[in-house]
Amino acid sequence: MATDGPRRCSIADTLGVVGDRWSLLVLRELSYGQTRFMQIQRALGAPRDVLTARLRKLEAAGIITRRPDPQSPTRPAYDLTPAGLELAPVLFALKEWGDRHLNAGDEPVVVRHDCGEVFHPHTHCAACGRPAQPDQLTVIDGDPPLPQFATSAAG
Amino acid sequence: MATDGPRRCSIADTLGVVGDRWSLLVLRELSYGQTRFMQIQRALGAPRDVLTARLRKLEAAGIITRRPDPQSPTRPAYDLTPAGLELAPVLFALKEWGDRHLNAGDEPVVVRHDCGEVFHPHTHCAACGRPAQPDQLTVIDGDPPLPQFATSAAG
Repeated sequence: MATDGPRRCSIADTLGVVGDRWSLLVLRELSYGQTRFMQIQRALGAPRDVLTARLRKLEAAGIITRRPDPQSPTRPAYDLTPAGLELAPVLFALKEWGDRHLNAGDEPVVVRHDCGEVFHPHTHCAACGRPAQPDQLTVIDGDPPLPQFATSAAG
Repeated sequence: MATDGPRRCSIADTLGVVGDRWSLLVLRELSYGQTRFMQIQRALGAPRDVLTARLRKLEAAGIITRRPDPQSPTRPAYDLTPAGLELAPVLFALKEWGDRHLNAGDEPVVVRHDCGEVFHPHTHCAACGRPAQPDQLTVIDGDPPLPQFATSAAG
């Protein structure tokens, strides 16, 4: 049944878990293999108490796990869980857009795919394997009900 | 030259532009074809002044454009620019993760690809076309310097 409230949506729900700046940057550092509290704090420049709170929230959500850091008696280290690793496409997409639109020609981090080329992500349809564009998509269920995806760009 | 400050990073830079909850949900509504101020406000449940500020910021960043709304003398309508459309993979990835991990079996919005199947995004390497996983990626340049991407999940 349609409601008059805000749209029910997995985008909003995911943002409720990882949708603050620090949480996504924590996941970035873990993806880069920086797993110790002090490494993460240094790379982010986040206040220590804020970072602690974000790490606890990510752990409670099943996105990271905590383990003793053999090099530190007081601070743990962290790893991505399988659910956390599945957020990689979010990071890939944010990085690619920033590289193209904010840092073109001066990309701060360059990543190579194991095919040997610099990595740029493309989104494909899992069912047919073809590259997916918004104008190929139709919303078939939503609450409130939705028209089709926008099919053309402005300007 | 390596620095001791926070990491230079396109992920952080993109989040500086669209990394608040409301901005990404505005882009979602425009992707769904909901282009009028009142439609967006109703779908988001955002305070009017907050939404106005976010729309101005997105317009200044070249992500949306504003035009007169033929149905309203006081409120404009909005469209995604080509740069805004290129943020679609971010929305796809956030939606897919939420559908899988927060709303499995009760996905709030269902989208069909033009191949006829329900749409699930897969990330592929643009160069070789194969599905891309974090353990296939190596950081070859970064500031501060970075180790390889994490290659395995915990737990």
